[in-house]
Amino acid sequence: MLTDVLFTKDLNQPIGIFDSGVGGLTVASAIKKKLPGESFIYFGDTRHSPYGEKSAETIRRYSDAISRFLLSHNCKALVIACNTASALAYTQLKKDYPHVPIINVIDPVVEYVARFEKGKIGIIATRATTSSGEYKKRLLLKNPNLSIEAKATPLLVGLVEEGFIDTDLSKGAIKAYLNNKRFSQLDALILGCTHFPLLQPEIEAFYGGETTVIDSPELVAEYLDGALSKAKLLSTKKQGDYRFYVSEKTPAFSRIAKNFFGENITLKEKVL
Amino acid sequence: MLTDVLFTKDLNQPIGIFDSGVGGLTVASAIKKKLPGESFIYFGDTRHSPYGEKSAETIRRYSDAISRFLLSHNCKALVIACNTASALAYTQLKKDYPHVPIINVIDPVVEYVARFEKGKIGIIATRATTSSGEYKKRLLLKNPNLSIEAKATPLLVGLVEEGFIDTDLSKGAIKAYLNNKRFSQLDALILGCTHFPLLQPEIEAFYGGETTVIDSPELVAEYLDGALSKAKLLSTKKQGDYRFYVSEKTPAFSRIAKNFFGENITLKEKVL
Repeated sequence: MLTDVLFTKDLNQPIGIFDSGVGGLTVASAIKKKLPGESFIYFGDTRHSPYGEKSAETIRRYSDAISRFLLSHNCKALVIACNTASALAYTQLKKDYPHVPIINVIDPVVEYVARFEKGKIGIIATRATTSSGEYKKRLLLKNPNLSIEAKATPLLVGLVEEGFIDTDLSKGAIKAYLNNKRFSQLDALILGCTHFPLLQPEIEAFYGGETTVIDSPELVAEYLDGALSKAKLLSTKKQGDYRFYVSEKTPAFSRIAKNFFGENITLKEKVL
Repeated sequence: MLTDVLFTKDLNQPIGIFDSGVGGLTVASAIKKKLPGESFIYFGDTRHSPYGEKSAETIRRYSDAISRFLLSHNCKALVIACNTASALAYTQLKKDYPHVPIINVIDPVVEYVARFEKGKIGIIATRATTSSGEYKKRLLLKNPNLSIEAKATPLLVGLVEEGFIDTDLSKGAIKAYLNNKRFSQLDALILGCTHFPLLQPEIEAFYGGETTVIDSPELVAEYLDGALSKAKLLSTKKQGDYRFYVSEKTPAFSRIAKNFFGENITLKEKVL
């Protein structure tokens, strides 16, 4: 039947995933692992990267242009794989595209952490994300018993992009940011930037295993699974396919994408 | 006489200085010190910052828009206080605005270093600057006896912007980048990024005083003095005045401008 065909076609449309650059590939990688039958189109807005120090208005404008591009390619759902855009553009996108499931990278973490009955929670992220106060606001709304410390740690982004992973330098930066009273004796630390999972083992080692370090991409992939399932949009395919766009082919993206996604990728350029 | 009045007016027009962000303020600061009678308008293209990973075409487009803005404010000369734009946009700007003295931050350093009879010269800069090969090309053109090692050290930019100056972390990053055979026993090290003068004492300490670390802003200010003098455009005023524009008011700029310029500044926003 025609309706069945169309329905099946919808299910097997790709998911649109976007970030200001390369960081969201950690989310794309977790989605690929958790939902191998799903296809996706990844968009890295390298022309405007990094979003971390830009205004809310600018980030909303960029996020809208990318969402329109992804929806014009028939994406069945959108994943904002960027903390800054999740903090500043999610509400607007939900309003503008009410019929599309839209997942951000903050809410899955907030839902997970809010289940802690009480405790001291740390958040590290870019300056735009911490300044927005979104993690703190959404966490306290769900669970007012939490005590929350947030800190901007932008240098960790550069360290990851430069490949200084598991080095004296990355350990030194982690210590410089976290070795203080505010960030001691945490029950959980939220890595509020999609670059940071690459430093997760070192951050866990810094805390000697006594603090839960939250793996945000994995939580996002689980949340997406639930959202697609609820919307009856789970793919029926065994193996998805993946397309990768950037708004400008930069040396950084090509050089480090493999670190983030776990395998080589082929890039197309699309100026928006 | 009317012509005299006009002539005097020309002399006392401001110099236009621009950079992708805050780094060029080290150049502005050196100009203020060397040429206290000169006024200037500084433009930091924070909306598009950093230039370091962008394409030549994009950087030329941004540089042209800023130059037009500065010239529309009657600037008598332009200083490209950004290594990336100096490497990629200078030649085009010279062609487009042939009647305006235009100074870049590379040539003054090249002229200075080319006077070394022979020797091993190191260059550290952003990836766009090292990839352009402009320092190496211009140095070897002036003096083919030099041996040249260039390296991208983008993490040093983040360290300076985050205020990690004279810390274990900055010393660690300097060591991570320079403690190798390529960068040992240098006769001179060129700091090919306007952020790096803030790390100059640490870099000099790393080399134990045995390598000349080139202070680019001071050389640029001297070069500008010569160029204005030659064009008979030196100001007749005792004390210049300064205006500062950014294409987007970012927290980073306001926070760290004082480190770069040496005093508090008032910002205006101008979207180009």
